[in-house]
Amino acid sequence: MIKSPTLSFDASAELLAEALSNNSLSQVARALQPLDVAETLEQLERLNTIDRALAYRTLPKGRALEVFERLDARLQADLVSGLQDAQVAEVFAALSPDDRVALLDELPASVANRLILGLKEKDRALTTMVLGYPQGAVGRFMSPQFVTTHPGTTAGETLARVREQLDDAESVYTIPVTDGSRHLVGVVSLRDVLRAAESDLVSDLMKDPLSAPATLDAEEAARYCADAKVLVLPIVDAENRLVGILTVDDALRILEDAESEDAARAGGSEPLRRPYLATPIRSIVRARVVWLLVLALGATLTVQVMGAFEATLAEQVVLSLFIPLLIGTGGNTGNQAATTITRALALGDVRPRDVVKVVARELRVGAWLGLLLGGLGFAVASIIFTVPLGLVIGLTLLGVCTMAATVGGLMPLLGKALKVDPAVFSNPFISTFVDATGLIIYFLIASAVLGL
Amino acid sequence: MIKSPTLSFDASAELLAEALSNNSLSQVARALQPLDVAETLEQLERLNTIDRALAYRTLPKGRALEVFERLDARLQADLVSGLQDAQVAEVFAALSPDDRVALLDELPASVANRLILGLKEKDRALTTMVLGYPQGAVGRFMSPQFVTTHPGTTAGETLARVREQLDDAESVYTIPVTDGSRHLVGVVSLRDVLRAAESDLVSDLMKDPLSAPATLDAEEAARYCADAKVLVLPIVDAENRLVGILTVDDALRILEDAESEDAARAGGSEPLRRPYLATPIRSIVRARVVWLLVLALGATLTVQVMGAFEATLAEQVVLSLFIPLLIGTGGNTGNQAATTITRALALGDVRPRDVVKVVARELRVGAWLGLLLGGLGFAVASIIFTVPLGLVIGLTLLGVCTMAATVGGLMPLLGKALKVDPAVFSNPFISTFVDATGLIIYFLIASAVLGL
Repeated sequence: MIKSPTLSFDASAELLAEALSNNSLSQVARALQPLDVAETLEQLERLNTIDRALAYRTLPKGRALEVFERLDARLQADLVSGLQDAQVAEVFAALSPDDRVALLDELPASVANRLILGLKEKDRALTTMVLGYPQGAVGRFMSPQFVTTHPGTTAGETLARVREQLDDAESVYTIPVTDGSRHLVGVVSLRDVLRAAESDLVSDLMKDPLSAPATLDAEEAARYCADAKVLVLPIVDAENRLVGILTVDDALRILEDAESEDAARAGGSEPLRRPYLATPIRSIVRARVVWLLVLALGATLTVQVMGAFEATLAEQVVLSLFIPLLIGTGGNTGNQAATTITRALALGDVRPRDVVKVVARELRVGAWLGLLLGGLGFAVASIIFTVPLGLVIGLTLLGVCTMAATVGGLMPLLGKALKVDPAVFSNPFISTFVDATGLIIYFLIASAVLGL
Repeated sequence: MIKSPTLSFDASAELLAEALSNNSLSQVARALQPLDVAETLEQLERLNTIDRALAYRTLPKGRALEVFERLDARLQADLVSGLQDAQVAEVFAALSPDDRVALLDELPASVANRLILGLKEKDRALTTMVLGYPQGAVGRFMSPQFVTTHPGTTAGETLARVREQLDDAESVYTIPVTDGSRHLVGVVSLRDVLRAAESDLVSDLMKDPLSAPATLDAEEAARYCADAKVLVLPIVDAENRLVGILTVDDALRILEDAESEDAARAGGSEPLRRPYLATPIRSIVRARVVWLLVLALGATLTVQVMGAFEATLAEQVVLSLFIPLLIGTGGNTGNQAATTITRALALGDVRPRDVVKVVARELRVGAWLGLLLGGLGFAVASIIFTVPLGLVIGLTLLGVCTMAATVGGLMPLLGKALKVDPAVFSNPFISTFVDATGLIIYFLIASAVLGL
């Protein structure tokens, strides 16, 4: 059986939409029936909250659990309000401790407390342990269920331990090695355990462990896990005692969320917390309007700059023709630099301490871009208009590009240093700043060259 | 031993920089000596090409191989030119077939051919097999080295097969199940093999396989692998015969590159192919200048629009004061929409067939944003300037926001439909388009309201 990611996707969507518009539960069930878990998820994520709850309730029980487990926490929370208490308790108990915590964060406190109290004691202890870490810390995303072994244990015994705990452990493919006081002293891969002779000691098989403290920022820990290409990153407390593991699939999810957030911020809006088609219009408006207002407020600076040079403009109306082009080019140059540095920061290619290097590089890049564009602008404007005007345009482009690239490169580093998400000093933010500064450069050069 | 990602990073960078500026190889070796592979990589990626080659050559042999294996293909290619032929052949042979292909793509054809001919026959066959797939296809990134089992094989026999091939196979944690003609019929996890009784048949343990065709776009396949949370995605040919596996760590690398590319495009530049600090200034200029020129060319449209309304502007210079604010707000609104839809497309949350839904949603969002901002703009401009001018500003904001959100939402879908990277219709591109259209809206409304 061949499964391609897009096979029959459109047909299923069509069928499901029709069934929902007919309000026919049996039709909905039939539309979902041939889909696997991933396909079901994809379809559910495109529906509005009510349709989703309706469709979800037609799923057979086992499938429903599997689907619930893999839904976004926010969509899980949406669903919970549409389910019976008994159903909620059941799906909640079936989640792993880290997924349970993600869902709890989205629920009203009263519902959350009731759910926690409904858990079996062992599950409750694991869940509250994960809940104990601050929001955004990797401790919140780790799994407290894992197999460990010890340096003095043999490969054969380790394999037996793994076999015993196959059902509970989140991953058994990388096994943390701890000493008698639960301190992390190494990791051993299941591959190496299988390769070894039964009587080989773990101490001879294990490697130096990578690990991250439970209080570390989740995105940093996930990036570390991804860069190091490990399937499992052991998570330790301040005394280097093993408290959980971060699996690569959880790391992937963290990185995906972080990247969606960065992308949204780079576009000048708050990230949406649900998939686009599942987000109500008013939530989208809310995610965007605050930033638009802040940016518009910033842009009133440009009105003031323009006002200050109103007399110049009245004398030479031709100057106003180039304003959108000049500030647009400045904005573009600034965005290019800001995007590059924001991404380099996220990947760890650049660090805040590199500020001098970055500024020096962007200054040079901006000057080169300004020379190229300014030269061209001078030539074209001199031919079409006049040489003095050509000179104004050319010099302004040189000044604006140099300034914009430098400011664009500096802003994300400034954000990082101020412990603000560097992406908040986003492209629109930089455009607005660069607009006002660019106008000043333009009018000063024009006044000097044209003797206004 | 506790290892935190940033432990002593700065100190190491300092030591290394000093050693390099002293041209002292023994000092360089000492600076790198305490670092693990990941830390060494991080330091190397920050150096220029010559310093990197110098530092690399001080690494002990085993460590050098490990580091080389995990470097970006582009940086590997940079290094190759600085190494002896024998050293190159050695590191090349030590790479896995998919990594070998990535490096070959970066090397001049003559070097590439020599390296392929130098391989052992079996390695050569695997490498040319991967090389046979088109650039960008997942076939290029898959590993052709894997363990398989068959439905009629027992769990015990499968475990024995795994043990035999532990050294060659890229991953043994998810085992594809094939029939007599190599058709993929299922997958079985090593976890289930370990849990089963020795005599259990694979046919009773296996699950329906997810898979992707080898010619599928690598980013789509990687996203599929990540969404499905599988450690291994089997890759098949057109007849559903197993030809390779995509491991989750390779999927992560593909996604990371794709996201860097999207981020760069959203900022209006070509992606850099090396880490920022390792990229020469002229490459950065090259990555940015073409887009800046194209965008500046597009922006000449704004000069023409302004020119067409020059008489209006001359009569009412006050109108020019608001131009940067109005087109800036339009650009911001367009960027917000474009960023959201580009990301939703990348995640598969939105598909090209959703175009009507997206446009309808963005039209409503844009109108709401326009009402909110326009209302505010009307109030403020009426108080500070005049009521008619307030009306012009308010109505223009309403028109511009509605238009910009709709255009911004539509563009990435258009790009996808035209099989252009949706991120190419990037924020700067949209800003430029929205600038010109916004100016027309502004002047038309101004002419109508002020009776010019």
